[in-house]
Amino acid sequence: MIEAAIDLMRGSGLSGAGINEIVRASGAPKGSVYHHFPAGKQQIVAEALSDYSVRVMSFIDAALASRDSAADKLAALFSAFGRRVEAGSFRRSCAFGAVCLDLDEDLDGLRGLIADAFDDWARLIARHFDLGDARRTRSFAGLVLTAIEGAYVRARAEQSSRPFIEAGSWLGEVVSPAGLRAQTPR
Amino acid sequence: MIEAAIDLMRGSGLSGAGINEIVRASGAPKGSVYHHFPAGKQQIVAEALSDYSVRVMSFIDAALASRDSAADKLAALFSAFGRRVEAGSFRRSCAFGAVCLDLDEDLDGLRGLIADAFDDWARLIARHFDLGDARRTRSFAGLVLTAIEGAYVRARAEQSSRPFIEAGSWLGEVVSPAGLRAQTPR
Repeated sequence: MIEAAIDLMRGSGLSGAGINEIVRASGAPKGSVYHHFPAGKQQIVAEALSDYSVRVMSFIDAALASRDSAADKLAALFSAFGRRVEAGSFRRSCAFGAVCLDLDEDLDGLRGLIADAFDDWARLIARHFDLGDARRTRSFAGLVLTAIEGAYVRARAEQSSRPFIEAGSWLGEVVSPAGLRAQTPR
Repeated sequence: MIEAAIDLMRGSGLSGAGINEIVRASGAPKGSVYHHFPAGKQQIVAEALSDYSVRVMSFIDAALASRDSAADKLAALFSAFGRRVEAGSFRRSCAFGAVCLDLDEDLDGLRGLIADAFDDWARLIARHFDLGDARRTRSFAGLVLTAIEGAYVRARAEQSSRPFIEAGSWLGEVVSPAGLRAQTPR
């Protein structure tokens, strides 16, 4: 059921991930839902997001570790995400992004979980870069995360991985040695 | 009903914008839905998104036109979006982004509408910048759009407008004169 929930959330956020849809997609008997997840939908969603976050971190870490220079790391990361959105036929994106934009007032617990995951992801990204000082590096890592989530939105609309590839290239300019030399300290 | 649909989509994408929710939020009698929108939910959503797109373009245009230099334009644009997400108590984002990540197979008409709107927005943004050649300028405008959509995701999760402010500052570095000088032609 966790796998079914992840796939449904990647496809259509909370709107597609109702208990009935999750049960149907998983093939599990409906009675087993409340046995395994006594708190219902919010519990399934929370556990699925937690599992998914571990995978995202492993995916990001592997892509960034595959290259040496900062610009190459960014190109590798964004092209890995580009291949990922292609593999999902532009119908799957980040479960966190899709769920986050669907949250209403009664799901504030999930919001905290998403914020914590984004924080983990940004810290992980920051460990692969050194932009002079820790605060600036961390801010840049946040920009990388912003670009990933935004590129998913555009990639799904445009049915193209180009938003990822272009973002990787632009962010590579930011961290390229020429770009770094051009920066004024602040 | 259009206003109610826009507000619901900004809040929770397609998951919150069911016919019943739209009718309830608008205060209109339910019978009037199929009088005004014979094709039902997809028609309301499409018309609401079209109206919303016009407003977004006016909002973007005003923010970019309010400053002269490229970096200042970006700072103004992202801080305008930052104020917007604050004004919505971090519970409202871009209706297009939220709906886009909720789309499933049977809503491909909406996907095309969203792709066309993003194209319009990127063209509008591109008109405010000159990065040497039209293709590069257009690609940068796409990055700006990517960053807006991604910053909404993070802003809602983190309940902060900081993702917008930081994105505006980083993108300002990309177009700053020093950054431009540092670029290698391609």
